[in-house]
Amino acid sequence: MSVFEGVKVIGFDADDTLWVNETLFREVESKFFKLLEGYEVEHRTSQELFKTEMQNLDYYGYGIKGFMLSMIETAIRITSWKIPNESIAEILRLGKEMMEAPVEILPSVKESLQELKQAFRLIMVTKGDLSDQERKLSKSKLEKYFHHIEIVSQKKEENYRKLLQHLDIDPSAFLMVGNSLKSDILPVVNIGARAIHIPYHVTWEHENVEETDLENKDYITLESIHALKEMYSRWKSG
Amino acid sequence: MSVFEGVKVIGFDADDTLWVNETLFREVESKFFKLLEGYEVEHRTSQELFKTEMQNLDYYGYGIKGFMLSMIETAIRITSWKIPNESIAEILRLGKEMMEAPVEILPSVKESLQELKQAFRLIMVTKGDLSDQERKLSKSKLEKYFHHIEIVSQKKEENYRKLLQHLDIDPSAFLMVGNSLKSDILPVVNIGARAIHIPYHVTWEHENVEETDLENKDYITLESIHALKEMYSRWKSG
Repeated sequence: MSVFEGVKVIGFDADDTLWVNETLFREVESKFFKLLEGYEVEHRTSQELFKTEMQNLDYYGYGIKGFMLSMIETAIRITSWKIPNESIAEILRLGKEMMEAPVEILPSVKESLQELKQAFRLIMVTKGDLSDQERKLSKSKLEKYFHHIEIVSQKKEENYRKLLQHLDIDPSAFLMVGNSLKSDILPVVNIGARAIHIPYHVTWEHENVEETDLENKDYITLESIHALKEMYSRWKSG
Repeated sequence: MSVFEGVKVIGFDADDTLWVNETLFREVESKFFKLLEGYEVEHRTSQELFKTEMQNLDYYGYGIKGFMLSMIETAIRITSWKIPNESIAEILRLGKEMMEAPVEILPSVKESLQELKQAFRLIMVTKGDLSDQERKLSKSKLEKYFHHIEIVSQKKEENYRKLLQHLDIDPSAFLMVGNSLKSDILPVVNIGARAIHIPYHVTWEHENVEETDLENKDYITLESIHALKEMYSRWKSG
């Protein structure tokens, strides 16, 4: 049976599925490590930053502002309370620069959405900070392809259940497409809906999952959104 | 004609309408002014903080994280790049303390929502940071009174228009209740829906409006949510 059979709504993750995101965080992280290289080696700073981000997740949620606050906290700790004001100001500047960055749409996204839109109701399901995600959405000019945009703070089974309730559809009529096994694939498959994994070349450590969590999970992996469009065209033409 | 006549959906603002919010920001601001009193007098620090917040609004949106980042930026500037690491750490601590604060429900809110819920579809329309608002909502235990919760980054006419479209109702069937003339009353009245203003004793400077903007605007002012419930009871009974 085709993965499209009986599907009414396709949900698309946005960050690193429709547009570049993680790469931006990595670039700023590199600059942050450089800022602290007089105090600590890069891989230790990296570990400390990740630890701080995880400790702060319940406070800050996802997004650039929380990232900035966690960088400041990490910098104070790593330098033993000696980080110069200039470096903190630089962290603030790097964060604002991220917010100003243009949104880079991934290849084949527009034509694929255009094609799929003819046959399915498309929705965007994106996790993160409200102001970050709205800013990127507006810059992306992708809003017109979507029937509905859902910005959520978490992508757990409960969130997808509520979403399907809100859309008033059965899990079997929902297909989710995204780059994160943890956020876009596993919770979706676990509630009986379908999922297509399109990996991105960089994954945030927090989004990694254990191999064993993937055992016996029924989902498809494609190498690009273009491949998704091709798969749909083949199915449609018989 | 009663303000309830023909109304199907009542929208409630949350911060300072259902629960205490602005007071918390004011308390932390006081502590922030104290932290900087060796460098600048309170009213100047206050002006500078507000200026910074306004400059950062497009970057950070509303909420505690943006407030923290703007306090740090203001502190660096006011101290001429001499703010000690200890004070920056204190700002981070104050912000997290705000996030941990219990949610204080305003008087009569629960019984009023319970009563109104029998006759209208209630929705919550709250502006701010997604993680802040979800955290407060969860602590408030008010979710059960609402058919739908909408967390928006802005409360402008366009946002209310989209909301009514989504709810599939005419403006004349929508009544908004809130404490902010700028966010809860004016944009609502301007799109032809109804509004009830319940002032809170503290208003953030950013939410203030010009007297002239209120001329010829048709809305009701009540002193408490209890008064709203009483008004509804009188209308219902005859």
